[in-house]
Amino acid sequence: MSIPFAAIDDYKRAAAECAIALLGDGMVVGLGSGSTAEFALGALARRIGEGLRITGVPTSDRIAALAGRLGVPLTDLGTRPIDVAIDGADEIERGTLNLIKGGGGSLVREKLVARASRRFVVIADDRKLVDRLGNRGKLPVVLLPFARTLALHRLDALGIAATLRRLNGREVVTDDGLLIADCVCHNIGDAAALAARLAAVPGVVDSGLFLGLASEAIVAGAGGVHVIAPISA
Amino acid sequence: MSIPFAAIDDYKRAAAECAIALLGDGMVVGLGSGSTAEFALGALARRIGEGLRITGVPTSDRIAALAGRLGVPLTDLGTRPIDVAIDGADEIERGTLNLIKGGGGSLVREKLVARASRRFVVIADDRKLVDRLGNRGKLPVVLLPFARTLALHRLDALGIAATLRRLNGREVVTDDGLLIADCVCHNIGDAAALAARLAAVPGVVDSGLFLGLASEAIVAGAGGVHVIAPISA
Repeated sequence: MSIPFAAIDDYKRAAAECAIALLGDGMVVGLGSGSTAEFALGALARRIGEGLRITGVPTSDRIAALAGRLGVPLTDLGTRPIDVAIDGADEIERGTLNLIKGGGGSLVREKLVARASRRFVVIADDRKLVDRLGNRGKLPVVLLPFARTLALHRLDALGIAATLRRLNGREVVTDDGLLIADCVCHNIGDAAALAARLAAVPGVVDSGLFLGLASEAIVAGAGGVHVIAPISA
Repeated sequence: MSIPFAAIDDYKRAAAECAIALLGDGMVVGLGSGSTAEFALGALARRIGEGLRITGVPTSDRIAALAGRLGVPLTDLGTRPIDVAIDGADEIERGTLNLIKGGGGSLVREKLVARASRRFVVIADDRKLVDRLGNRGKLPVVLLPFARTLALHRLDALGIAATLRRLNGREVVTDDGLLIADCVCHNIGDAAALAARLAAVPGVVDSGLFLGLASEAIVAGAGGVHVIAPISA
């Protein structure tokens, strides 16, 4: 039985509102990108309307524009320490809370903001929980356009089927002017080893593997909202 | 006694012509960027005029445009294996032939081409030879613009004074849309350790350290042209 789309949105919103409730006055907050993060931005704007004072660090041009329209004050990465970053994920591994992100294409900035944050809260509906990373979708890998052909050859030589992400027939270019190769990586066992192998491929700037970064996951489903802490490997 | 500028150009040209003499019919050749590499391109165009058939892989938009004007056939990185890459350097460490490159700002593409080449020939006048890297100039480090402030803070925390490269008051943006931080790193002992520390800084895409890549250096000076092989560490 598939879950109604409206329910999925309710779960995303519930997880997002729970995360925004964690924020306190004066905090600097990393603003993730993607549909769940946009629910968080909406909840944040409401709290700002009620008097909360925070400063956001956006992870994409799109979320920066949305935040601007909603009256959320913004600053640049690195200007001030980030207290909490709140972002969605495409896959969350039970136990480790290692993630795959990048379905929305903003993973480079999202990871920079997550790494710079004291606390990184992942929000999701519970379809995103997996026993092993790689089992829901593809792993995005970010490439320098100059190296696209070489990088795809090398990924193929590693046994990783990769296709450049396209939209309406055109290669998707990130806010940083980079390309995204969506890689088939089923049932990822040693994610750190995979990350290292990908990093060694010429022209690879980053991958959607977020390892050891999440402080907690707030996951919502038919059973309600749960806050999950990572279990060290 | 300073060396006359004309003599420096003669040395660069001599090293460049020696490297171009290594090329054979049918080769795919990595075309470096910078003043010495441009002498090599000129020598290559003359050999093509005499009947040599090669295909070039350019490392910058500038060298691609020059090559186009000189009638040098070009291909993209990764389309075909590269037989030889020929490029200059800002510093060449005696013995190891480890390099610092990036004064011209094309180091990301230059390193990708060097890594993809079976043989990487460095050409230079002999002022570029140093006993320890870092003693002639600064080490260029390439940054994602989004992370510029954070990356400069983190470099500073590592004790590395870094300044964003500017030209006529504006930040220099590379062909890949990236920024360059010129870092003071005198007397580099363990270059591999420094490269690893730099790679761990958020937002750093690459550095001008080219370690273990040069197959040989062709160095010209008042004493003539010398071909130097690396000595393993």
